[in-house]
Amino acid sequence: MAKKSTNHFVEMTENSKVELTPADIRALDNLVGLADMVVQSAKSKKDPKVEIPSRTLSNVRYNKRKRYIEMGKNKTKRELFNLSQAKSYMQTMLVSSGCKQLIEQGKSTSIRGLYYLLKHTIEGTREETFGDQNECDPIIEDVEVLLNTLREELHLYAQKKGDMVGMITLRDKGDEIDCSKMGSGGYGIPSIVEPDTIEFLKCKAKFILHVEKGTVWQRFNEDKFWQKHNCILTHGGGQPSRGVRRLLSRLHNELNLPVYCVLDNDPWGYYIYSVIKQGSINLAYESQRMAIPEAKFLGLRSIDYNRCGLSPSVKIALNDNDRKRAKQIAQYPWFLGKAKWQKEINKMLQNDFKLEVEALISKNVSYVTEVYVPERLKAKDWLD
Amino acid sequence: MAKKSTNHFVEMTENSKVELTPADIRALDNLVGLADMVVQSAKSKKDPKVEIPSRTLSNVRYNKRKRYIEMGKNKTKRELFNLSQAKSYMQTMLVSSGCKQLIEQGKSTSIRGLYYLLKHTIEGTREETFGDQNECDPIIEDVEVLLNTLREELHLYAQKKGDMVGMITLRDKGDEIDCSKMGSGGYGIPSIVEPDTIEFLKCKAKFILHVEKGTVWQRFNEDKFWQKHNCILTHGGGQPSRGVRRLLSRLHNELNLPVYCVLDNDPWGYYIYSVIKQGSINLAYESQRMAIPEAKFLGLRSIDYNRCGLSPSVKIALNDNDRKRAKQIAQYPWFLGKAKWQKEINKMLQNDFKLEVEALISKNVSYVTEVYVPERLKAKDWLD
Repeated sequence: MAKKSTNHFVEMTENSKVELTPADIRALDNLVGLADMVVQSAKSKKDPKVEIPSRTLSNVRYNKRKRYIEMGKNKTKRELFNLSQAKSYMQTMLVSSGCKQLIEQGKSTSIRGLYYLLKHTIEGTREETFGDQNECDPIIEDVEVLLNTLREELHLYAQKKGDMVGMITLRDKGDEIDCSKMGSGGYGIPSIVEPDTIEFLKCKAKFILHVEKGTVWQRFNEDKFWQKHNCILTHGGGQPSRGVRRLLSRLHNELNLPVYCVLDNDPWGYYIYSVIKQGSINLAYESQRMAIPEAKFLGLRSIDYNRCGLSPSVKIALNDNDRKRAKQIAQYPWFLGKAKWQKEINKMLQNDFKLEVEALISKNVSYVTEVYVPERLKAKDWLD
Repeated sequence: MAKKSTNHFVEMTENSKVELTPADIRALDNLVGLADMVVQSAKSKKDPKVEIPSRTLSNVRYNKRKRYIEMGKNKTKRELFNLSQAKSYMQTMLVSSGCKQLIEQGKSTSIRGLYYLLKHTIEGTREETFGDQNECDPIIEDVEVLLNTLREELHLYAQKKGDMVGMITLRDKGDEIDCSKMGSGGYGIPSIVEPDTIEFLKCKAKFILHVEKGTVWQRFNEDKFWQKHNCILTHGGGQPSRGVRRLLSRLHNELNLPVYCVLDNDPWGYYIYSVIKQGSINLAYESQRMAIPEAKFLGLRSIDYNRCGLSPSVKIALNDNDRKRAKQIAQYPWFLGKAKWQKEINKMLQNDFKLEVEALISKNVSYVTEVYVPERLKAKDWLD
């Protein structure tokens, strides 16, 4: 089957002159394999069905050895000849066919774009292929797990988010980009950062400093922190996008760069760290390509109010939702066994206030870049 | 007075070795001038006061000749010896002093950062200088209008947003950035793009194509639209930030580049165009540096559903808020006299649906870059 689809692909390439990458060939093979299965079922007079690894919470577990969230082995059948499943069966095939089309054309689009590409009234009926985007998105996730292929490999991109500067030169679609010469603006991290698109050329950096927000990133960039400390500086504009997480993970794994995170001292900051480190519960299947179990939490810490001698003016009172979220996060399996993390979260609840990274500015504008982060890096003072 | 403050500045520079730019010197002169006024009042035993151009809606008007929104001549007194004004008087001085400090240190920060820098308990009292950020932000705007100095010139930046690629090379804080060699990621548009930071070096581009969203920008970048059509391609991640607007305005005015906008066919898209073109009502004082009265609206248009032969599936029904906003926007003075715009907005209301740029993908993935935009540019078919 693999051979057949590869041949098919070669023909296709010659006709349309699209240069397929090894990842494209792999994705196409998977997509064609899926279609072949349907044909085979039909020929052997069996009911066409697919078995999709189930993305329910009960099928998600924390793998203690690998130290990230992964999916269990439960699968859900989706059958064509089943009234309640026929539509989602059709949608699964439609999404797969849309992605095949994108790969063969050498183009990519957003998940919104794919939705528009596929949405139409089914001939002879008044039925729409998709009611709205919310019907299409989970099917994309189904196809990702079904084919064990990231959506980026299926040529689907998300909103761009985050910037990067620092001691690394990379190749992005043929262009050489020296991230140490990117001024105040930086290199806009793309949505798709797979090896076919982004290739690391030269890297002098010894680590990655990832900060939560663009405003904090600008402070570090203005102080040329990445030059003084020989590192790479990234931000994710809040919760980092898949592109940012995947890039961090590739930099970490392929170039052996430790990742240090500077996030707000609030449940949201803890959560961002948790997602960078262990992956997200909703999209557990992507963890093996995105999670960075070795990522360190450099701060802000609940002890920083006293440790840094901050003024009472910078306290932001916790609200009920903060308290609830903090308690939930303390129960995450990867935080449960860790005394330091339990202490950290308890201390925040005890403080009954949160702190933003910007609060350090009350010491002075560059306290965070000149004192806070360098001191903690030197003392290896972080949470793990 | 100007001379005195300039001297002061020179000394300062020699001590702290911060290289002040001409814009810094101008801003410092303004700030020191403000402080001198207070001292003079005190010496001549007059009540210290400032007169701040009032930023109320009633003091905002559309200048038909200049074709942008500007402020009227109304001013509001703010006096130190007036119980209801003393606090905001103090805050005005505090913000001014904070900005002076930033400029002298050669550093910049976010408006959030400035808030933290200035927030403290006033000695001997339980009074905070600022209750929360919402108390600080309008004071920053007051200082901007009072000194006729953009916040960026006061070393205050916003969240970064938007990316740029295309036929231009610029210098950003000493680094030369060739925007035609920025791969799939692009150059992240900085928050502060004043001439001291961003200098245009070489430009082969004939125009600027500004699109609303990052996902649409990625489509244009992937198809190398900017190379084929010899232009600059930008997006603002939705409503463009001040940095994006100021950069577009500088590119337009300094390099004589026309600006064409590709936005969604909904009231939000109209509004974005309106802000790019005439400035925003809330921040009218910045229009002269940011508005681009010549900017053209290339689409999407309400007639595109029929003109492009789109499938009914791409329609998104208007809701009550959309209808209300559309009617409000039709009444904007700069749209009122324009038959084409009235027709455009009426047609949308008549359609009773809106269209996203991504809807064009239903034709094919690259319809927007290969057909829609090139055809309209060629036919000079836009709204003005």
